[in-house]
Amino acid sequence: MIIMLRIIFVIMLAGTSGLSCLAQSRALVFQTDFGLKDGAVSAMKGVAFSVSPSIALYDITHDIPPYNIWEAAYRLNQAAPYWPVGTVFVSVVDPGVGSSRKSIVVKTKTGHFIVTPDNGTLTLVAETMGIEEVREIDEAVNRLKNSGQSYTFHGRDVYAYTGARLAAGVITFDQVGKRLESGIVKLPYQSPKVQQDLITGNIDILDVQYGNVWTNIGQDLIRNSSINYGDKVHVLIKKDGKKVYSGELIFGKTFSDVPEGKPVTYLNSLLNFSLGVNMGSFADLFHVGSGSGWIIEVSKSR
Amino acid sequence: MIIMLRIIFVIMLAGTSGLSCLAQSRALVFQTDFGLKDGAVSAMKGVAFSVSPSIALYDITHDIPPYNIWEAAYRLNQAAPYWPVGTVFVSVVDPGVGSSRKSIVVKTKTGHFIVTPDNGTLTLVAETMGIEEVREIDEAVNRLKNSGQSYTFHGRDVYAYTGARLAAGVITFDQVGKRLESGIVKLPYQSPKVQQDLITGNIDILDVQYGNVWTNIGQDLIRNSSINYGDKVHVLIKKDGKKVYSGELIFGKTFSDVPEGKPVTYLNSLLNFSLGVNMGSFADLFHVGSGSGWIIEVSKSR
Amino acid sequence: MIIMLRIIFVIMLAGTSGLSCLAQSRALVFQTDFGLKDGAVSAMKGVAFSVSPSIALYDITHDIPPYNIWEAAYRLNQAAPYWPVGTVFVSVVDPGVGSSRKSIVVKTKTGHFIVTPDNGTLTLVAETMGIEEVREIDEAVNRLKNSGQSYTFHGRDVYAYTGARLAAGVITFDQVGKRLESGIVKLPYQSPKVQQDLITGNIDILDVQYGNVWTNIGQDLIRNSSINYGDKVHVLIKKDGKKVYSGELIFGKTFSDVPEGKPVTYLNSLLNFSLGVNMGSFADLFHVGSGSGWIIEVSKSR
Repeated sequence: MIIMLRIIFVIMLAGTSGLSCLAQSRALVFQTDFGLKDGAVSAMKGVAFSVSPSIALYDITHDIPPYNIWEAAYRLNQAAPYWPVGTVFVSVVDPGVGSSRKSIVVKTKTGHFIVTPDNGTLTLVAETMGIEEVREIDEAVNRLKNSGQSYTFHGRDVYAYTGARLAAGVITFDQVGKRLESGIVKLPYQSPKVQQDLITGNIDILDVQYGNVWTNIGQDLIRNSSINYGDKVHVLIKKDGKKVYSGELIFGKTFSDVPEGKPVTYLNSLLNFSLGVNMGSFADLFHVGSGSGWIIEVSKSR
Repeated sequence: MIIMLRIIFVIMLAGTSGLSCLAQSRALVFQTDFGLKDGAVSAMKGVAFSVSPSIALYDITHDIPPYNIWEAAYRLNQAAPYWPVGTVFVSVVDPGVGSSRKSIVVKTKTGHFIVTPDNGTLTLVAETMGIEEVREIDEAVNRLKNSGQSYTFHGRDVYAYTGARLAAGVITFDQVGKRLESGIVKLPYQSPKVQQDLITGNIDILDVQYGNVWTNIGQDLIRNSSINYGDKVHVLIKKDGKKVYSGELIFGKTFSDVPEGKPVTYLNSLLNFSLGVNMGSFADLFHVGSGSGWIIEVSKSR
Repeated sequence: MIIMLRIIFVIMLAGTSGLSCLAQSRALVFQTDFGLKDGAVSAMKGVAFSVSPSIALYDITHDIPPYNIWEAAYRLNQAAPYWPVGTVFVSVVDPGVGSSRKSIVVKTKTGHFIVTPDNGTLTLVAETMGIEEVREIDEAVNRLKNSGQSYTFHGRDVYAYTGARLAAGVITFDQVGKRLESGIVKLPYQSPKVQQDLITGNIDILDVQYGNVWTNIGQDLIRNSSINYGDKVHVLIKKDGKKVYSGELIFGKTFSDVPEGKPVTYLNSLLNFSLGVNMGSFADLFHVGSGSGWIIEVSKSR
């Protein structure tokens, strides 16, 4: 009896088992620029659920601004590291649908999988999670049956379908398609650097809900410049070379280190140097945007 | 031992078993016009989860414009066919709540179930999926206990509750209530037709995120008129009989068949004739809307 | 064999088992003011899913207006009672992040758990569900590993992590941290009362999707004042003591008790006295808002 029970336990814990009950250890996480007003995302999830009801279906966001590959790259990089090893992401921000852009699945060095058009969406995770291997989706095999006549909804018929089959263990990573040796497409952007106590970086994104300004300057560069909590820092923000903002700001642990309505610098949840206003919007107050061409310079005040 | 294991496997795979672990093969998919700003949809899901934690709870959309039954019919038809047989849908767009409109559950010919007020929400799935049987919800049985004093939230107390019980196998379809022989309520709309090489149809909906214009003209009518990819077609759009747009457009496989900013016709993910602008909005550019009275005529250019 | 099967059944049904397959009986339900445009909510869910893939992850809303603790309290109270006993809620509306506000988990008298900053979010559930016990989160134990350098995303690193561990049974409620005897923070608001046939209460919230006005006057006060369906009631709405609206309205079972475009009073899904317009918005039509200072007086018309 005890032996019997042990066997049952082994069966129930076996992650690679085909039993729907057990396979719940894998998540399939979607990101698109489709919005949630129509039935497109639901159709993608229906296809995935049809592959296997045991996959857990979740989301990053479906509110990527239409065709904005940079923001897709950013949101993916923001959320993906917090999902467990083995999680499969499907990102569909695809202005080149139907063009010659490749449909790929990458395995990261951290053991995550990402299904996406090869258009720059992987730019940031390539740096933070690392790319171990890239495979091109073989649509002769990895395409929803009876969908061959539709040329426009790759997100549902190829990406969701392939991601679900990978998450459910119906196919292995090798069975996605042939291995690509040529590397992936990356978007250009300004990397953080330090020169003579001056840290330069890019304003990656606005924390839209609150109007905070997030840079790509990591905590290491801040710490190496001997900037500590409570210190004052000088900040200069330029757009295409023209000054937009300059000021002396506290480097705080939290917004409440400054009075309401006052600006502060801090490390955000990604541990990057950021700017905010206690109970307000830095972006609105000082007319600051994000993306290519938005440069920030930071130095410790003397 | 081997026999024992076989039995265990049979138990674990038995889809109709009452074990919550196994019942995960059924999804309950919600659609409403409630939005997601308040707690209403969550209360519906809480009721469903209370019926059985093993049902997988998903969504089509909760952003149907308030009281817009036509769009509810359209979104349901867009997403439902991609969910597996046995899936239960709960659609609550219900301007007549509390009136004499019936609360029903239909079984489609494809084996899906839809819980909805009988107000026209089923107009389109009735054509694409077929209606096999209609039952009226017997609220004496199929109503959340202790909810009897509330007259206004049928979505939670009757529809979510009944849908969850059906999805979890707590009740059979027969136990929903008495069979209705009178058929379902349908909304009037212009069906697609062909006369002397001229295809006429309805503009069903705008693909709001991108501004694409979707008609109810299927690929068969296009193909039967010998319209092939790369051909030019003449398009005339009228609203209540007055011309809104006319032009000669390419019938493309994808948006990238035309330069950026240029209009194109194509088959959308439902394989219906549609109009878009590469990296732009056809609806905005040419002031085109959708719904009753929006007629489109298409013919192959000679 | 029969004994064997019984044991298997017991194993499979045992809610406290560590097997992921079985633990699906607990839901973890999130509420924030983060919105869904970025990856923050997904990162929280990734952390929770990493704790255990068997927890069911759901939402109340992520569209609480930024820093609006009152609305967080209201939405939590609206949805929580419909989730089963044992459900764990994580509410992160936290203007005081990084200040001295405590991070707590409460067990309600109904057997639900709520993880939240102690800032007033529990004001309303304290009345409707009751607070049985309050514990302060011991971050030395209950904090995502390797997150110690980030000072700003408690929602992910402490609240989602602790909520998931509690929902998955990794920790017991006692293991959250030390018991607090001091009670919780509550927001002030006007309680409903009756004086000489005049019922006075607060306008708690607008049903934003439809523009309905919801008060905190329960059905008991209405019934005790002999107000029955079909009766006329006199309604006076004041903001900070100044009259905004007054009128004689039907107390209806549903909106369709009055013609389209006409106002009506009714019991909403929480069984509270409310005001709406059939196919319209009471709030827009009569410029009515909600929150502190919005007082309503109701009496039966004679």
